[in-house]
Amino acid sequence: MVANSHNQQFQLAARPQGEIKPTDFKLVDVPMPVPGAGEVLVEVQYLTAEPAMKGWMEARVDYVAPIKIGDVMRGQGAGIVLQSDLPDYPKGTLVSGHFGWRRYLVSDDRSIPLRKIPVGVPSTTALNVLGITGLTAWFGMLDIGMPQPGNTVLVSGAAGATGSVAGQLARIAGARVIGIAGGQEKCNWLVSELGFEAAIDYKSEDTSARVAQLCPDGVDVYFDNVGGEILDVALNNLADRARIVLCGGISRYNESGPIAGPANYFNLVYRRARMEGFIVLDYASRFSEAISGLTKHLDSGELHHRETVLQGFEQLPQALMDLFRGSNMGKQLVAVNP
Amino acid sequence: MVANSHNQQFQLAARPQGEIKPTDFKLVDVPMPVPGAGEVLVEVQYLTAEPAMKGWMEARVDYVAPIKIGDVMRGQGAGIVLQSDLPDYPKGTLVSGHFGWRRYLVSDDRSIPLRKIPVGVPSTTALNVLGITGLTAWFGMLDIGMPQPGNTVLVSGAAGATGSVAGQLARIAGARVIGIAGGQEKCNWLVSELGFEAAIDYKSEDTSARVAQLCPDGVDVYFDNVGGEILDVALNNLADRARIVLCGGISRYNESGPIAGPANYFNLVYRRARMEGFIVLDYASRFSEAISGLTKHLDSGELHHRETVLQGFEQLPQALMDLFRGSNMGKQLVAVNP
Repeated sequence: MVANSHNQQFQLAARPQGEIKPTDFKLVDVPMPVPGAGEVLVEVQYLTAEPAMKGWMEARVDYVAPIKIGDVMRGQGAGIVLQSDLPDYPKGTLVSGHFGWRRYLVSDDRSIPLRKIPVGVPSTTALNVLGITGLTAWFGMLDIGMPQPGNTVLVSGAAGATGSVAGQLARIAGARVIGIAGGQEKCNWLVSELGFEAAIDYKSEDTSARVAQLCPDGVDVYFDNVGGEILDVALNNLADRARIVLCGGISRYNESGPIAGPANYFNLVYRRARMEGFIVLDYASRFSEAISGLTKHLDSGELHHRETVLQGFEQLPQALMDLFRGSNMGKQLVAVNP
Repeated sequence: MVANSHNQQFQLAARPQGEIKPTDFKLVDVPMPVPGAGEVLVEVQYLTAEPAMKGWMEARVDYVAPIKIGDVMRGQGAGIVLQSDLPDYPKGTLVSGHFGWRRYLVSDDRSIPLRKIPVGVPSTTALNVLGITGLTAWFGMLDIGMPQPGNTVLVSGAAGATGSVAGQLARIAGARVIGIAGGQEKCNWLVSELGFEAAIDYKSEDTSARVAQLCPDGVDVYFDNVGGEILDVALNNLADRARIVLCGGISRYNESGPIAGPANYFNLVYRRARMEGFIVLDYASRFSEAISGLTKHLDSGELHHRETVLQGFEQLPQALMDLFRGSNMGKQLVAVNP
């Protein structure tokens, strides 16, 4: 039935030391899984690369279990049901889930819970705006950031998957949104397509001076995807009662030694401000509310998105390395069988 | 009418470089002020020394105006009305307010707003639990920290004026409270008189190990008066959804060079936690609510307090220097005319 295919997976070969390297992964041929009673066989079509993966690989976080050496690399994917003994997921159903970096898998919907991709939604969108990325932007921006009409909202990593959605959600909420991204192409995209009021290219501009200039009354919400010096800049430009949403710290993820904290954190006192972290999985009971809201914004055309898609399963390590070099715009994906 | 008295004030002579020194102040004889129509003459009886004063002297904060060189040193005081042309404040009325470091002052109740000290309340208590100190503890702990019954609450600077009240308010709210203070005498006071469950002497104990041991399920609320390494320890021991109340950073106030930020701030993400600052003056419209609550706890005997009182107006610089050396227990005051 899957005559011409063979199954492969990427396993974690080594914990990254500093930057992620190709040798941190091992590409392994594995037997084609055979679905039993009450199971489906899924052919994976897209897999994601995400900043959080580095923490899982390094085993230096504790909010989820680390990946063990030799385990299949963890990650979200989308695919199609090839064989089914589950009435809810007939052959041909498009599904997403925590598939891991492999070409084929079987599931009874419990070992790896499956989510149906709604008819008409591209799988790439299901992994981006309507996946964990969009959910992260939704709850981070709306629940923690709480942008109000007229607020000034600053987003770093603004051309990334989460930042680009988070900034647009703030814009839809009536805020003026300033993005920080690396490179003119990304900055152009933020302003011309996504409706950001302005964008700062941190690679060619003086971020500190530009933030002060663009946010003369201070930053009401700072959605932080990067940490490091840009977090310091935001802390120096807070409005009273500002909210800093700690979403990511990609500038830190490539460091292997001690990392400096925000030296000016005490501005949180002077500005009566708040810095708060969150884990999107805590909001599972409210995912449907967010998916419904995100879908509405997609359907109305208010919410734009982009995916950077590398072609071929073997490109997965490269996709993740690209992400840490900032070469993606929007969601970083791999098309498994182009 | 005030025949034997002369008036004096401490002026700011120099902005502190590193630690505060006696030469940062200048003791000046000034004319006895003469109250006019609609004014009172107040003889100051107690003046306070507070950590925030260093920031005002250095002019490195912007939430209030800095003190200018040559200006009278800013600070809260309590005194008695000696002459009055204000019907609301007859001769003999005890009052508190932003008197500054001087022996006598006149006010029309607008130039320096006056607050009556309720009958039966000692002036020292009015400057401590029922003054800005108690208000800071009240709003910081209850509004920002939000301790719940059964929560574990950690307080640094716990034997100081604000920390000792904040910790007790958490205890009254049903939390188990752990204090961090310098020296065994302070630690004994916290446990035996104030009802803290335990106290850690940071001068003789391994604070990190002790916090982990005493808070095995993590810290739900950390009330921070000190910053520095103890903030790092708290960040390493947070419970999920913890609240860090940024009240002070006295460990930083003696530094003149760059100050390290909390390197592990990203634990706020893993623990879905919040770090928030506040300025008590923002709560002015709710001061009466807090005073009423604090008075109730004082009257019931649940809320204990202590004042460390130096004798004599000329002791004011010493009182402030003592504060930064941590030699006070409870509120640091000076009795102007002992």
